[in-house]
Amino acid sequence: MKLLEDRIRTEGTVKPGDVLKVDAFLNHQCDVALFDKMGEEWARLFVGTRVDKILTIEASGIGIACVAARHFNNVPVVFAKKAQSINLDGEQYSTSIYSFTKQKEFPVIVSKKYLNEGEHVLIVDDFLANGNALNGLLHICETAGVIVEGFGIAVEKGFQGGGDALRKRGYRVESLANIRTMNAETGDIEFNS
Amino acid sequence: MKLLEDRIRTEGTVKPGDVLKVDAFLNHQCDVALFDKMGEEWARLFVGTRVDKILTIEASGIGIACVAARHFNNVPVVFAKKAQSINLDGEQYSTSIYSFTKQKEFPVIVSKKYLNEGEHVLIVDDFLANGNALNGLLHICETAGVIVEGFGIAVEKGFQGGGDALRKRGYRVESLANIRTMNAETGDIEFNS
Repeated sequence: MKLLEDRIRTEGTVKPGDVLKVDAFLNHQCDVALFDKMGEEWARLFVGTRVDKILTIEASGIGIACVAARHFNNVPVVFAKKAQSINLDGEQYSTSIYSFTKQKEFPVIVSKKYLNEGEHVLIVDDFLANGNALNGLLHICETAGVIVEGFGIAVEKGFQGGGDALRKRGYRVESLANIRTMNAETGDIEFNS
Repeated sequence: MKLLEDRIRTEGTVKPGDVLKVDAFLNHQCDVALFDKMGEEWARLFVGTRVDKILTIEASGIGIACVAARHFNNVPVVFAKKAQSINLDGEQYSTSIYSFTKQKEFPVIVSKKYLNEGEHVLIVDDFLANGNALNGLLHICETAGVIVEGFGIAVEKGFQGGGDALRKRGYRVESLANIRTMNAETGDIEFNS
């Protein structure tokens, strides 16, 4: 999606350690007009696909998912919560996700009330790198017995392989900007087309 | 706002300790059509008020704020982040908020880049109880030198006093549902009109 690639080129900054900062418009300050265009584009890409619900994970996915949902007939958005601890009371689906950014494992939960067997789910998130967060959400979806129709991702760091691993497993991954290479010294960013 | 009060009456549940669960439509599963109506209502209430930016706090405020921003000419939404620790590198405004729900203090940060002196800000959040979270955001706004035009709140627990304390300080607080009393035994909820 050229609009998003252009914003990343002009306002994104590449930091050492394969970090791309896009907090000017995506995940700290939010450009909701851009989010709306992103939602429109996912709706175009997933046209004809049954989507009963959008699943995302706090915090940065929430705004994108809620604005995008308008383009999917206002389906409910459920966001997985980063929990203090996994409460095994049977009321929640839970998993554990390792964050390379934070270098620690954290528990993630979704109430069983909000994922129902047989529902068709679109997973939306701001970033896809190694895929740890999304694999955690997939694990929850498998336990819940929902059908994952695909992934709507804003920025995929293609060179980290998480997206292609999901595609090899047969999942449809629609990343609106897919980074082939980025360079912290020069600031150059190249996209897969 | 009758629409929101009705949803709270039908789908909200009162738990012991003055806890109101509205995770079916507000802060775990999100009804984005409802969020849109809430945004429309805040826009009606704050008509004629200059709003350059909407400020909220992760996680539950983000979806509401991003959908509402559409009714404020798509102004940017900035969400304060709950941080692991306060990084005193001078690039962030920071404060500390005590959460009664979690019974602990947690640091909150906003990048200095996204709050600029003289900007007019509307603060949006899902809940207002004792006001700790919003006072933290106010503290950040004061430090940044932005003008807080008011608060757009989904659910105020009026009996906990945080909203009235803000009103006494001269702030405009527009809560779309303001709870006067609620009873965990009977499940009854009464609203201030």
